[in-house]
Amino acid sequence: MEHPAVIRPVEHAVWNASKMGKSTLFESPRLLVGLNGFEPGQSHELHAHAGMDKMYYVIDGEGLFLLDGRELPMRAGDVLVAPDGVPHGVRNAGSSRLLVLAVLAPGPA
Amino acid sequence: MEHPAVIRPVEHAVWNASKMGKSTLFESPRLLVGLNGFEPGQSHELHAHAGMDKMYYVIDGEGLFLLDGRELPMRAGDVLVAPDGVPHGVRNAGSSRLLVLAVLAPGPA
Repeated sequence: MEHPAVIRPVEHAVWNASKMGKSTLFESPRLLVGLNGFEPGQSHELHAHAGMDKMYYVIDGEGLFLLDGRELPMRAGDVLVAPDGVPHGVRNAGSSRLLVLAVLAPGPA
Repeated sequence: MEHPAVIRPVEHAVWNASKMGKSTLFESPRLLVGLNGFEPGQSHELHAHAGMDKMYYVIDGEGLFLLDGRELPMRAGDVLVAPDGVPHGVRNAGSSRLLVLAVLAPGPA
């Protein structure tokens, strides 16, 4: 993808019938901007990133965000940060698609 | 602000009659998640960050995003990345408020 340019995330969403769809909008050693697409019933299991912070922004739909032992309902327009080392995950427990902007800093080595 | 918790950005927006309003949703050495609120006619002058990438996400409204000598119209749901050292700015040329999620990586020292 050419940069810099305006990106409409919905045009880059990946949907996969068998697991969460992933796409990358921007990547550098400092920052990764990606999309996670969850069909109804799909999830991203609890995991943690050592030395990285992650920000979620819900673009469309709603879901349960797992963070540090809690299940947090989130909907379009909500932000959540999983700081360095805090276990986090996502579950689309609803009946509509869930599209999430996922920002990692620093970017994966 | 206590973390981790779900954040609704619109509840944290700062509006200032005399200049762009700024608020911080999360800050670490790796990542800064902030909000920029532009009343009609307000702008953030062209500037650059050495060694930092910046991602804009338009939460509400529309505006002109200045990047690398170009003026890019953006509206709610659009993403733009200003990589390390690339001059960027924002101008609310419309008649409605413009609210932008601004993510910097790494966070300011």
